[in-house]
Amino acid sequence: MAKIETLKRPAPARSGWDLDRILEELRVSREVTNNIRHGGHVHELPSPDIILNVIEGLCAALFPTHLGQAPLSRENTGYFVSNALTTALGRLADQVHRGLKFNADGNEPQGLMKSRAEAMTQDFAAQLPTIRAVLVSDLKAAYQADPSANSIAEILLCYRGATAVIYHRIAHALDRLGARLVARVISDLAHASTGIDIHPGARIGESFFIGHGTGVVIGETAVIGNNVQLSQAVTLEADRDKVKSLPRHPILEDDVIVYAGATILGPVTVGKGSVIGGNVWLIESVPPGSIITQAKTQADCSGPSELLPGS
Amino acid sequence: MAKIETLKRPAPARSGWDLDRILEELRVSREVTNNIRHGGHVHELPSPDIILNVIEGLCAALFPTHLGQAPLSRENTGYFVSNALTTALGRLADQVHRGLKFNADGNEPQGLMKSRAEAMTQDFAAQLPTIRAVLVSDLKAAYQADPSANSIAEILLCYRGATAVIYHRIAHALDRLGARLVARVISDLAHASTGIDIHPGARIGESFFIGHGTGVVIGETAVIGNNVQLSQAVTLEADRDKVKSLPRHPILEDDVIVYAGATILGPVTVGKGSVIGGNVWLIESVPPGSIITQAKTQADCSGPSELLPGS
Amino acid sequence: MAKIETLKRPAPARSGWDLDRILEELRVSREVTNNIRHGGHVHELPSPDIILNVIEGLCAALFPTHLGQAPLSRENTGYFVSNALTTALGRLADQVHRGLKFNADGNEPQGLMKSRAEAMTQDFAAQLPTIRAVLVSDLKAAYQADPSANSIAEILLCYRGATAVIYHRIAHALDRLGARLVARVISDLAHASTGIDIHPGARIGESFFIGHGTGVVIGETAVIGNNVQLSQAVTLEADRDKVKSLPRHPILEDDVIVYAGATILGPVTVGKGSVIGGNVWLIESVPPGSIITQAKTQADCSGPSELLPGS
Amino acid sequence: MAKIETLKRPAPARSGWDLDRILEELRVSREVTNNIRHGGHVHELPSPDIILNVIEGLCAALFPTHLGQAPLSRENTGYFVSNALTTALGRLADQVHRGLKFNADGNEPQGLMKSRAEAMTQDFAAQLPTIRAVLVSDLKAAYQADPSANSIAEILLCYRGATAVIYHRIAHALDRLGARLVARVISDLAHASTGIDIHPGARIGESFFIGHGTGVVIGETAVIGNNVQLSQAVTLEADRDKVKSLPRHPILEDDVIVYAGATILGPVTVGKGSVIGGNVWLIESVPPGSIITQAKTQADCSGPSELLPGS
Amino acid sequence: MAKIETLKRPAPARSGWDLDRILEELRVSREVTNNIRHGGHVHELPSPDIILNVIEGLCAALFPTHLGQAPLSRENTGYFVSNALTTALGRLADQVHRGLKFNADGNEPQGLMKSRAEAMTQDFAAQLPTIRAVLVSDLKAAYQADPSANSIAEILLCYRGATAVIYHRIAHALDRLGARLVARVISDLAHASTGIDIHPGARIGESFFIGHGTGVVIGETAVIGNNVQLSQAVTLEADRDKVKSLPRHPILEDDVIVYAGATILGPVTVGKGSVIGGNVWLIESVPPGSIITQAKTQADCSGPSELLPGS
Amino acid sequence: MAKIETLKRPAPARSGWDLDRILEELRVSREVTNNIRHGGHVHELPSPDIILNVIEGLCAALFPTHLGQAPLSRENTGYFVSNALTTALGRLADQVHRGLKFNADGNEPQGLMKSRAEAMTQDFAAQLPTIRAVLVSDLKAAYQADPSANSIAEILLCYRGATAVIYHRIAHALDRLGARLVARVISDLAHASTGIDIHPGARIGESFFIGHGTGVVIGETAVIGNNVQLSQAVTLEADRDKVKSLPRHPILEDDVIVYAGATILGPVTVGKGSVIGGNVWLIESVPPGSIITQAKTQADCSGPSELLPGS
Repeated sequence: MAKIETLKRPAPARSGWDLDRILEELRVSREVTNNIRHGGHVHELPSPDIILNVIEGLCAALFPTHLGQAPLSRENTGYFVSNALTTALGRLADQVHRGLKFNADGNEPQGLMKSRAEAMTQDFAAQLPTIRAVLVSDLKAAYQADPSANSIAEILLCYRGATAVIYHRIAHALDRLGARLVARVISDLAHASTGIDIHPGARIGESFFIGHGTGVVIGETAVIGNNVQLSQAVTLEADRDKVKSLPRHPILEDDVIVYAGATILGPVTVGKGSVIGGNVWLIESVPPGSIITQAKTQADCSGPSELLPGS
Repeated sequence: MAKIETLKRPAPARSGWDLDRILEELRVSREVTNNIRHGGHVHELPSPDIILNVIEGLCAALFPTHLGQAPLSRENTGYFVSNALTTALGRLADQVHRGLKFNADGNEPQGLMKSRAEAMTQDFAAQLPTIRAVLVSDLKAAYQADPSANSIAEILLCYRGATAVIYHRIAHALDRLGARLVARVISDLAHASTGIDIHPGARIGESFFIGHGTGVVIGETAVIGNNVQLSQAVTLEADRDKVKSLPRHPILEDDVIVYAGATILGPVTVGKGSVIGGNVWLIESVPPGSIITQAKTQADCSGPSELLPGS
Repeated sequence: MAKIETLKRPAPARSGWDLDRILEELRVSREVTNNIRHGGHVHELPSPDIILNVIEGLCAALFPTHLGQAPLSRENTGYFVSNALTTALGRLADQVHRGLKFNADGNEPQGLMKSRAEAMTQDFAAQLPTIRAVLVSDLKAAYQADPSANSIAEILLCYRGATAVIYHRIAHALDRLGARLVARVISDLAHASTGIDIHPGARIGESFFIGHGTGVVIGETAVIGNNVQLSQAVTLEADRDKVKSLPRHPILEDDVIVYAGATILGPVTVGKGSVIGGNVWLIESVPPGSIITQAKTQADCSGPSELLPGS
Repeated sequence: MAKIETLKRPAPARSGWDLDRILEELRVSREVTNNIRHGGHVHELPSPDIILNVIEGLCAALFPTHLGQAPLSRENTGYFVSNALTTALGRLADQVHRGLKFNADGNEPQGLMKSRAEAMTQDFAAQLPTIRAVLVSDLKAAYQADPSANSIAEILLCYRGATAVIYHRIAHALDRLGARLVARVISDLAHASTGIDIHPGARIGESFFIGHGTGVVIGETAVIGNNVQLSQAVTLEADRDKVKSLPRHPILEDDVIVYAGATILGPVTVGKGSVIGGNVWLIESVPPGSIITQAKTQADCSGPSELLPGS
Repeated sequence: MAKIETLKRPAPARSGWDLDRILEELRVSREVTNNIRHGGHVHELPSPDIILNVIEGLCAALFPTHLGQAPLSRENTGYFVSNALTTALGRLADQVHRGLKFNADGNEPQGLMKSRAEAMTQDFAAQLPTIRAVLVSDLKAAYQADPSANSIAEILLCYRGATAVIYHRIAHALDRLGARLVARVISDLAHASTGIDIHPGARIGESFFIGHGTGVVIGETAVIGNNVQLSQAVTLEADRDKVKSLPRHPILEDDVIVYAGATILGPVTVGKGSVIGGNVWLIESVPPGSIITQAKTQADCSGPSELLPGS
Repeated sequence: MAKIETLKRPAPARSGWDLDRILEELRVSREVTNNIRHGGHVHELPSPDIILNVIEGLCAALFPTHLGQAPLSRENTGYFVSNALTTALGRLADQVHRGLKFNADGNEPQGLMKSRAEAMTQDFAAQLPTIRAVLVSDLKAAYQADPSANSIAEILLCYRGATAVIYHRIAHALDRLGARLVARVISDLAHASTGIDIHPGARIGESFFIGHGTGVVIGETAVIGNNVQLSQAVTLEADRDKVKSLPRHPILEDDVIVYAGATILGPVTVGKGSVIGGNVWLIESVPPGSIITQAKTQADCSGPSELLPGS
């Protein structure tokens, strides 16, 4: 007797509905004509809902007084973290196991796979203190970079860019340990919440800052150095000759700044300390210290209104 | 005794609050000075919450082992689908009915309107197997197009672009059947979740793929052929001379590829197999096989830092 | 006995987990090496979850028949509004209090601070009828501007741009009253839900419309007149010489229209009635009546495919 | 993405399950061999969950500061009550309508039945101030009767007997207005929560008190005067010659006290001011002022242990 | 961002709390001085919450239009039942498995135990049509026995006695198949909801009715024939010489009626068609057709008030 | 967008509802004619919902592997307990504070009262290891007394009597520390869940067992020794001359057994090792070793059916 029922009316009983026919057509579509089951098997996939819960638990364990959503004192913070962490890790190991099962080729025994999922989760856990240290460098970088920010707490609470970076560092650690599918789910959850799409494979140095961030895309083999800043809608993608196993995304060396809307394509290198201006389109490497800006393209004219878009 | 109370403290009782006056001013604003009620009546609008629930139910019915969020076996999948589908359709018919009532001119009897809502839902249901087939073509196209993807399951679970396309195909079917307001709510739910804003009226062929997708806008009368690929922040909008009832958005023929940030405006046609480069601004039709790229505008210069944006 | 347990398996008990060591390292990181506590104290921060609840309550009180999510009649609408409003205001006062405590320098007595939070909330409440009037001007402007819109109800239900503007006008009022941190949380909630990032400090006139909106960024000291329209991905940001306390963002006078992807940087003024075209990059003031468009940069060529991005 | 999935494993896929056969047998049982549908039709029954919600809303409206579960001040109590009441009454009218439909003989038009349900709910609402006055007399009687009680608030919060009386007075009012099935659901909800089973038809005077209450049963045609007190496990039931339409349960006149475990059967009258002792078995009327006690049956004996029960 | 935080204040940080000491004492109590772990191992016990969910699912599958809590039509009832049943059975098999693991002696391999749990659940599922038939006989018996009942639907919705019997028949079937611990949890859930405590081992014939029911206790080896009626507070228990493996509870033959408060103890037999009156204390067998009533013990007297209980 | 709206229809808008009048009458009843506010003030009462949550947290902390409802291992049990305990104690201190405020005479400063509530909670916490030890004695006593029990885990999971005893020992400790109102709420929650009503003031020795338990009532000043067993429907109450501050309930010395339905009234003493039979009515003290049984009152007779109750 816990939930109020929510429906207004039953599906009508008219023979016209012909639900049996529709259901049979869906079955044929599912099992025969448009079967997309991986290897033909029914797998229990990692669950985005549970993974979101795991990530929130890890965030609470990393930053308990800011993201723990519970009133904490000096005395009980440690108790809260220990429980939040063990709870999240238990769930995570199970999700990692599901991901391994899904991608399995069938040669590994079930028991072994479960042990492997636990070992991966354990290795991930051991990295958490290091991950926290790098995240704090990111938060401090954001505080330095944005004059609107009044405290680091404000950045943790109110900056989607910070959320995206936290999620990415967790996803990247899992991806490197082999938990590919779970890592991808995490990056998609970040994408949904922030509009920032960072592939778990991307390697990013410390003190990284994304301003505003909506529309940022960072590809699988991108490499980003320390102290790099990106604004919204920056794209770091592959060019067209994309071969899966090769590096196909840009390298940004330390201290690079990229302004809003800039697009950097292919395995090019942006040298240390370079600044890439807004809306710039860059498909060649540039040496350290470069400042690249868009040509002055604006034109004052009272002319042809047909150039203006509608909605 | 079901919910823990969540408030800390009551609104203060000081006479200074003067809530009666504020409430009276809001009433006057609502009923007199800023009355925005449709036709002056109080209507029960379609509910975004329930419609989201319906869409999740339809997604579960279409792709039960991937989006059903329940452990399924070969044996019970059919049972799960049959219940998820009938539950979702019952709720959908009611929402469609609400939408019709809202837009009604008052000449149609209530009973008739309800029957019409049911008939529309029934027609929609009959299209679901076809919709599923087209969606599978979309998933396969995504798998072909993106070297980062390791399986079709990964695309269903982790690609916001795929979510946007699923929602759109459902919304479009409802829009064509006359369930306009419900269809618009669905497109807005997709917009909120994916950053991709496709008007339900847009007609899109099969094997459609949106990469990353944040910032994509596709207008009401746009027409898109088969095997088309769009990247993030692509705009397909009307130009300025927008007359509601006329086609005012672009036509993309089969096999067109549009890269990130490109803007295509007005009732222009992009010929079959054309490629539109990143950030291109296109307001004229181009023949089949065209390759349109932005002029080389980047300039290597160590010059005027005043061109660089701040934050 | 209210919630079904959701975990599959315990965290393994192998000594290899070494959770005690990880927890100790996290504690050291939290308290010593990477301590980010504001002033070294444990504060109870404003809660994004509760603030979201407050905002939804305020929206329901402002537009009860559209956003109230409950079936209302002429008779009970007033009752619903009075309760929704007092509930939301009570919670808001507490959140404002938390924000003040967080930013406190320690010289203000606790009791005084609480009274101040209540007074600020009370002043905010008194502005709600005015805020509603301005919001109705925004909704009407959207209805005028977008030929796809069939009713004002559709705009309230289905336009992320409208959501962003509602949230902003609430956040701005709180920001001006001194509730800085709560205002920033509200703007971040809007950013997460709409992809539109408006700093609470930005001053915006009436009849304001944002079309589609994904990727729009409006900075802290921006000033926008009446009857202004922005499309998606428009940036109004500071240029590089950003000093926190000075105006560093653009001024848009009345009746300005800015199309998708345009970037306006620094404390420049766009004169009354000007039109800024799509993707334009503007870093200088323009007089009233200007029409600024991007240079024609598209080039029809069947040439170098290396200019095209991959994904 | 709101609920964590809760299942561990799918129903096995072995052919041995033979679910199709079981489902078919259940269908035959449901539709043919053991069909218990009322009149052969599928009706939407009143929902105990929604009715529980309605009752909690009515309790909050009647005693807002005690049962409202929200922090209230003098100023906002009225707002809270107005919304709680209108919300509860709207839901109640719908449940009453369902009950009428279920019991309908098919001769009344649907529209008329709905109007009748609303009129009944309206009449019920008009009685609420009177019901509240009687309930306050009950609370005061409990406070007088029980030396353990420290305040009336304690009785409202902590006495199952008080809960049972509140539910009954609501159920009885609805029963008299013709909302039979809804009234019965309410009495069953009270039974589940308190162990006290009062048929909605029982007529009970003011200042009524039930101490502890577990096991109390009061039948459909029982009549109880003012200032009556019952202890736990008191039974007021029909004797064997039970004819549905005739009074078949006891009458207790004013000021009667009945102690724990007493059983009073049939249409007997217990005269004003009588006291019925614990475990008494009464099947005859007694005049005013009677004091009835069980015969002294205890025997001090060190004898036959076979008389003692085990468990 | 799903749950509103509910706490008012943190546990105080005063050193006086000394939580570390209390936690250490609890650990010693748990692991050393008062260790109650079964076999010293940490087992994952069956979960009452999940089992309650399973039972509600089974009830919905058995009586979908009455207990399904969803609007159903002739067409979709079958779909609903198939999903409710498979969902419930999947969860049940897992709970049965947990119960087996808990009681295991360690000699059975894990894999085998899981298969056994599934086989038991499968056998249980095959009995459901038969269980439904017997339950319908119980409902009809209740309708016959109680002149207050207006329909069988009212009995299913509003009679705690019916709830207890449904739960018992499910628990008994599981108990016989060997799922002891799960069966006991079910009987305890019934006890909590109805005040009726029937041990899963009790064997009960068809057309069984319990009126009101609060306080009824039926022991493990009790045997009850067909067409038996019990009132509230009837006890069928063992006498003192209780040896676990032997029958130690009463046998009630067909057509027996037992009135409220009667106590029948030990392995006695109540012959077919006997009637046991209210509050009777019976420790010897009685032949068929017996009518047993309490001696007339009530005494009209205006005497000793010290015989009357207080509260 | 988290909750599905649940209402079917608005409260009708007919003027006949006249809600303003009803609301005004309720206000007058609340504030004038039937004002039951304690001291005329609006107090925030302890919340049964939060207290239930606290109790479940304490139960989880005391018996984590049985009542923790989470999968635990040897390694993480300590972490789970530490968090569950600190969370529960923080909430408890706040509820105790509310209770103190409610009962305050107005002379104690607010700050002091809060410190007092914390000190009481702290003292309570220090007793938890001792409470756990006594509860384990109770569980072992139950296991010894009931041949149906197969394990101590079964008793913790499936015995309402055990639940009642756990709740009581917590409530009693709080009552002795002065948290009266909170303690009473706990005893009422136990009453609702188990049908067993033990006043928090009752003093009970170790190794206490209540079998089945429905209908048991134990009064405020009752005193119960070690190794006592009660069956269902046992009453230990005051006799009529009840003066609040004096002992008015029975004393049961060590090793007493009381069978179902027995009633013991007034400040009588039942000597060590006595056995009180089922349904016995006892209002005088009995010496140690007494065996008290009901007189043999059953009569085999085929006689007067009018003695049998109906329903």
